[in-house]
Order: sequence, then C-alpha cells, then structure tokens
Amino acid sequence: MTEERIVTAAVLVIGDEILSGRTKDQNIGFIAEHLTSIGIRLKEVRVVADDEGEIVDAVNALRARYTYVFTTGGIGPTHDDITADSIGKAFGASVGVDARAEKVLRDHYAARGVEMTLARLRMARLPTGADLVDNPVSAAPGFRIGNVVVMAGIPSIMQAMLIGVTPSLKTGSRLLSITIPVDRPESEIAEVFSAHQRRYLDVAMGSYPLMRNGRYAVDLVLRSDDASRLDEAAETLKVALNL
Amino acid sequence: MTEERIVTAAVLVIGDEILSGRTKDQNIGFIAEHLTSIGIRLKEVRVVADDEGEIVDAVNALRARYTYVFTTGGIGPTHDDITADSIGKAFGASVGVDARAEKVLRDHYAARGVEMTLARLRMARLPTGADLVDNPVSAAPGFRIGNVVVMAGIPSIMQAMLIGVTPSLKTGSRLLSITIPVDRPESEIAEVFSAHQRRYLDVAMGSYPLMRNGRYAVDLVLRSDDASRLDEAAETLKVALNL
Repeated sequence: MTEERIVTAAVLVIGDEILSGRTKDQNIGFIAEHLTSIGIRLKEVRVVADDEGEIVDAVNALRARYTYVFTTGGIGPTHDDITADSIGKAFGASVGVDARAEKVLRDHYAARGVEMTLARLRMARLPTGADLVDNPVSAAPGFRIGNVVVMAGIPSIMQAMLIGVTPSLKTGSRLLSITIPVDRPESEIAEVFSAHQRRYLDVAMGSYPLMRNGRYAVDLVLRSDDASRLDEAAETLKVALNL
Repeated sequence: MTEERIVTAAVLVIGDEILSGRTKDQNIGFIAEHLTSIGIRLKEVRVVADDEGEIVDAVNALRARYTYVFTTGGIGPTHDDITADSIGKAFGASVGVDARAEKVLRDHYAARGVEMTLARLRMARLPTGADLVDNPVSAAPGFRIGNVVVMAGIPSIMQAMLIGVTPSLKTGSRLLSITIPVDRPESEIAEVFSAHQRRYLDVAMGSYPLMRNGRYAVDLVLRSDDASRLDEAAETLKVALNL
C-alpha cells in the first residue's frame, strides 16, 4: 500500500432485491469497517436498481468525486446481471469475453467436470482495459477499471474480493476513534459536549444515543488522525463530564 | 391512503457512524420492506456524512426525483445533529423553535420531572412550514416538509415514526412477487431463465444465488403488479425448469 494524506471512497450497491427489502444488505457495514481500518474514508453510499441508466449515472458521479468506488452485485450469469455492461458504458469501454477470465472459468469448471455453457461464459465478460479481481470462493472474477472495483453481491465472495484487492489500494491516514460510553440521556450531556467540540475543532465529536440496561444512554465518539490530540480531547472530556 | 399508479421514494441515511462502520444500518431494510408492502417503490438509497453541504445536495437531488424522501438520523439534541438545519437550507426555509414541538417536549419532560434545557429545546427546532411527525417512544418529534419525511436514526423510534406517517402517504400499485427456490447453481438455469424473461417482458425476473444446505442454489424472484400475469409467468417457469 502506498500512502497519501486523505484517500476517499464510495460504495455503490446494485440490486433490486435490496430496494424491495427482500434481501437485507450485509455488505455496506463490512466494507465501511474494512476501509476505515486500512485508512480509506468512506464518504458516500448509494443503492440503485438493476437499471443501466441508474448504474451509469451513479458510477460516473461517484468515480469523479472519490479516490475509489466499490460496487457490489450484478456480476452473475443471468440476464439481470448487467453490472459489467453498465460499467463499460460508464467508461465508454466495449465489453466482451476476456481471455484471462475465460481461462479462470474454464479451468475451474474443467477441474469439477462441469460443462462450460454460454451463461457461464457470460461471467467472463468484462470492459476492455479492466483487470481481474480474484474470486477464491467460486472463480467468477470481479474486475477493476480506473478507480472502480467491481465485486460480487454475495457477502462471502465480496469479502474475499475486497481483502484480495486491499494490498493494491492506495491508503491514507487512518481516522482513529475513541468511544466514551456515558450512562446518561444524550440531552443531559449535550451542552458540555458541544462546548468541548468548540474547544477541539480538529477532533470530530459525535453522539450516539442508545438504550443500555433498559435506560437511555449515549456513546460519545471522538475521531481524529492525530493520536495525541485525540487522547487529550478524550481525557479532558471525561473530566468535563465528571466520569 | 389515496391511490395513484406508481409512487416512488428514496431513503437518505444521515450519519458518519454508518460510513465509519461503527454502527451497522438497520433502517434501510425495514423501510424498504415497509414501503414495498404499502405500494411505494423504493428506487434509491443514499448514505451521507453529517455535513450540511452533503445533506442539502442529496435532499435536493432526491426530492426532485421521487414522490417521497425518507431521511433517518441527525435530529437529536447535540451539536452533530444538523439534519433540521440542513433540510431547512435545502428548502430555503428558516429554522427555529416550533411552538407545537416545544409543547410536546415540555409536556413530556414535565410529566417526568425532568428539567427543560437549551439542548432539549434544540429538538424542537424545525424548518418553517414543517409538520410534526409523532414520536411515541421518546417524544422528540420528526417532521415533514414538502415531500420529505425526517425521522430519527434509532431503529425503534424510526419504525414508530414511519408507521405513524403511513396513513397520510399516497400509495400506488403494489409490486407483487413470487419466489421460486431452485436447488441448482444459477449458471445452470440462466439460459432457460433468460428465455423466460424474454417471453414475459412485463414481469421483472431476478435471480439471487445463495448457499442452501451447503450447496449452490438460487432463488428466482418474479415481480409484477398484475397478479394473473405473475402467476402465469411463475407456473410456466416451473414447467420450463422441470420443477
């Protein structure tokens, strides 16, 4: 991984099944946590339908704006898997069977005595200029073109793909965080907390209310890429709140 | 509920904590399923940071495009709760303490012997022209302005707010669906499935691979607002797949 100050990303989830509520997304949280841990800041997520125009517009808006775009879904063998064609269109690249991807699939199926069909070959269709993203789970590769990384929607495969591409990603400073759990209602600590934020403008402070042991409580989260400022802000906040 | 042919919606999740991966979103799936069940089609979801410019841009893009926009998050008492101000800015409306919301909060705290503070009063700040959205869980209201419904981020409160506003929403034709589970790999049924889609262009057909009992399997999902076409397409698909 090479280092640069701030590296950003967006996630684009492609899938009617998420929008209908039939499938509950399990990928956004995993990608968010992984990117944060390696020093890439996730700035935006979009979920769009299996619709070429929607995918093209979202990919083009996001890739212009962030260091990376990670997509999930729509790269299987069926007619509703239109991600490769849509990404090709977004980049103005032709889409066809890629010889490297075809070999991966042929080897995989041959080793299992499974016939290579036209539907299976469809999973080797990539935009011209794309690099393969390894799929150690079920062979059919994801791909990468420009700053866009295209991954499967099935969580186990998506996770393997994301971990596989990680060493080749540029990363930046990691946003560190400290969580201070407070067993009081959020509205009771709000004024002290706001005053503390004004005192440490370089440390982002967020307040996340929740129920703890049946009572209103709050987690105060401080974030900064400067460990010593973060520690100082956390320690002085605890004092200010009599913790 | 009044009826209209197609009613659409977007969800806008507001929150740094979702983008950092610290909190896993639990609202998108609930809202998606609820809207589908009442005849509102969720077309897009965005997740943005606690950043006024990002929120304003997203709200304005989405409210111009869909019948409704449902937002979650950022309406609490702390300084990082900037949703009301951001929505006000998106609509060009001033934001101040709303007398109705203030009364709801004062009554709630008085009944509990809790002091009304400036931080708590902050939760009564709404854009001018907004209507209250009832919060039966913890009193602090959501609000509705134009076609935008602003809800809390805590799942139990969000759910109560969404269910509360439901009777006042326009709804359209419900998208019905039939799921056909097939215990074969997706790539084996892809050709028959695509041919079937070409035969029923008015029925949307999606294929969702998964593991079932340790083997590759697939759920085929057919969707239409015409129950008899949907039934016919499902029955003939079963025949075509020898199920």
